[in-house]
Amino acid sequence: MTDEIMFERVALIGIGLINSSIARLMKRDGLAREIVIYSRRQSTLDKAMQLGLAERAESDLGAAVEAADLVVLGAPVGANAAIAEAIGPHLKPGAIVSDVGSVKSAVIRDVAPHLPAGVHLVPAHPVAGTEFSGPEAGFAELFENHWCILTPPEGCDAAALEKIAEFWRRAGSTVDIMDAAHHDKVLAITSHLPHLIAYNIVGTVADIELVTDREVVKYAAGGFSDFTRIAASDPEMWRDVFLNNQEAVLEMLGRFTEDLAALQRAIRWGDGEALEELFTRTRAIRRDLIEAKQV
Amino acid sequence: MTDEIMFERVALIGIGLINSSIARLMKRDGLAREIVIYSRRQSTLDKAMQLGLAERAESDLGAAVEAADLVVLGAPVGANAAIAEAIGPHLKPGAIVSDVGSVKSAVIRDVAPHLPAGVHLVPAHPVAGTEFSGPEAGFAELFENHWCILTPPEGCDAAALEKIAEFWRRAGSTVDIMDAAHHDKVLAITSHLPHLIAYNIVGTVADIELVTDREVVKYAAGGFSDFTRIAASDPEMWRDVFLNNQEAVLEMLGRFTEDLAALQRAIRWGDGEALEELFTRTRAIRRDLIEAKQV
Repeated sequence: MTDEIMFERVALIGIGLINSSIARLMKRDGLAREIVIYSRRQSTLDKAMQLGLAERAESDLGAAVEAADLVVLGAPVGANAAIAEAIGPHLKPGAIVSDVGSVKSAVIRDVAPHLPAGVHLVPAHPVAGTEFSGPEAGFAELFENHWCILTPPEGCDAAALEKIAEFWRRAGSTVDIMDAAHHDKVLAITSHLPHLIAYNIVGTVADIELVTDREVVKYAAGGFSDFTRIAASDPEMWRDVFLNNQEAVLEMLGRFTEDLAALQRAIRWGDGEALEELFTRTRAIRRDLIEAKQV
Repeated sequence: MTDEIMFERVALIGIGLINSSIARLMKRDGLAREIVIYSRRQSTLDKAMQLGLAERAESDLGAAVEAADLVVLGAPVGANAAIAEAIGPHLKPGAIVSDVGSVKSAVIRDVAPHLPAGVHLVPAHPVAGTEFSGPEAGFAELFENHWCILTPPEGCDAAALEKIAEFWRRAGSTVDIMDAAHHDKVLAITSHLPHLIAYNIVGTVADIELVTDREVVKYAAGGFSDFTRIAASDPEMWRDVFLNNQEAVLEMLGRFTEDLAALQRAIRWGDGEALEELFTRTRAIRRDLIEAKQV
C-alpha cells in the first residue's frame, strides 16, 4: 500500500464499527487530508474524537459534508433517506457519496433522489464485521482479505466508481461489482438468513424455562455457542437490514421453513435415511468452503 | 495427573473421534494396561492399529470385551442395543460398561436389559467434539476444560460411578451428574436443536439455484460459514441422536418454529420494534456466555 492522499476531505456519517475502521485505515495510510465525523449522539462523537479518529466532529449534517469530496454513509440503513435529504443541498459538485450498508437496492432508492446533479453515488458493501459495535470496536485491518461489493446504479460515473474501488483495494479487500438487486438476493442467502436464524434460536433458547439459565450457559459448547456470536451483532443495524431487504429475506425464510418441516417429519417418522442423506450433503459444503479458504 | 493404572483391560467399541481420543489419553497417562478395540470395519481397525491406539484389534464383539474391566460404547447410539446383546454373555463379573453418546435415556433403555447381574452400567456424555471423525481425528486433550455428564441409572453401583467420574476428571473434564431424562432435555436445547438448525440452513442454502455455488462460497463469511462447522459433524452419529431423542428435539423444534413465525410476521409487517427488542435480548446472552468463559 502506497501512502498517497486519495481524498482532501472525507465526511463519515455515523462512526460505528465500519466507519471507525475506515477512519483508522485512512489515518494509518494517509489516505485523507482531513476527516470530519458526524453522529446523532454527542457521546459517540466525543468518544471518537478521544480515539483520534477525526480532525473535526460535527453534530449538524450539512456542516459535516461541506466541501467533502467523499461522504460515507455508515448509519443503520433505515436512516439513509433522512440523512440524504439533509446533506443533499450541502454537497460539493463532483463529490462522491458512498456507503457501507448490508443492503443495496434500498440505499439507491433512498439516497439517489436527494443528490444534486454532478454528485456521484457509488454504493459499497464491505463484507466484513465483528459482533462488536461503536467507534471503539473498529480497527484498520478489518477489511483485509474480505470482499467489498460495489453496486453502481445505472449511469454511474466511471471515474468515481474506480476511485471507490481503488480505496477498497487499498483497504486490503477484493472488489466485486454487481447489480444491487442481485447483491440483495445473494446476501439474503449468505448473510441475512443466517443472522435471522441465529437471532431466532438464541431467542428460543433464552425463553426456555425447563432448564436453569445456568445449564444453558454450562453446556453451550455443545453447539449453541456457535450461534451466539452472530446473534450478538448490532440490533439497530440488523433491524434495518431485515426491513430493507424484506422480499428476498422472506423468500429465503420460506425455503428454510419448508426444509425444516420436512426434517421435522423425518424425525417424527424415524426416517434415518433422509436424515443421514442431508447430513452427508451438508458436510460436503464445509469442505467446499475450506478448499476456497472461506473458513 | 498422576500416572497410575486405573484399568487392567479396556475394550473400546467403535474407534471414532471420541473413543480414539480416550485411547490416546489412556496411553499418554498410562491409565490402562491393555486396550482392545472393536470396529465394524476392518479398515478402521487397521488404521487405528497403525496409529498405535491399542494392543489388540478384534472384529468379534464377544472376543473384544472378554476379561475387560471397562467397556466403552462409542458407536452411533442406534447400534447400542445390538452391541449390548452381543457382548452381554461375554462380560466379566464386576465389569463397568460405559459409553460416550449424546443421548442418555436411549442408552439405558437399549443397553441395561442385556447386562448380566454384577456388571455396572455408568452412562457418560463428554460434551466435547469437533466436526472431524474417525480414529485419526482424536487427540488426548479433547476433553480438557469440557464438561462430562454422567447419568447413573437407579441403583447404580457407587464405586463404579466414582471410578468413571475419576477417569473423566483425569481427562481434564469437570464431571456433572444428572438424571438421564433431564440430560436429554438440556442437551436437546444446547446441542441437538442447534445442530438440527445448522444442518437445515446449510441444506437450504446448498439447494438454492438463484445464485451460483461460487457466490455462496465467496460471501459465506457474511454469516453462513458460522453454521457450516457444526453442519459438518458426523452424519451417522447425528442421525442416531435425533432418532433417539425424538420427543425432546421435536418439543424444542416446535418452540423454535413458533418463534420464527413471529419473526417472519414482524419482518413482513415492518415491525422494527419487535425486531430490535429480540436482537437486543440475544446480544445479552452472548455476554453471559463470555462472562462464563463458555465461548
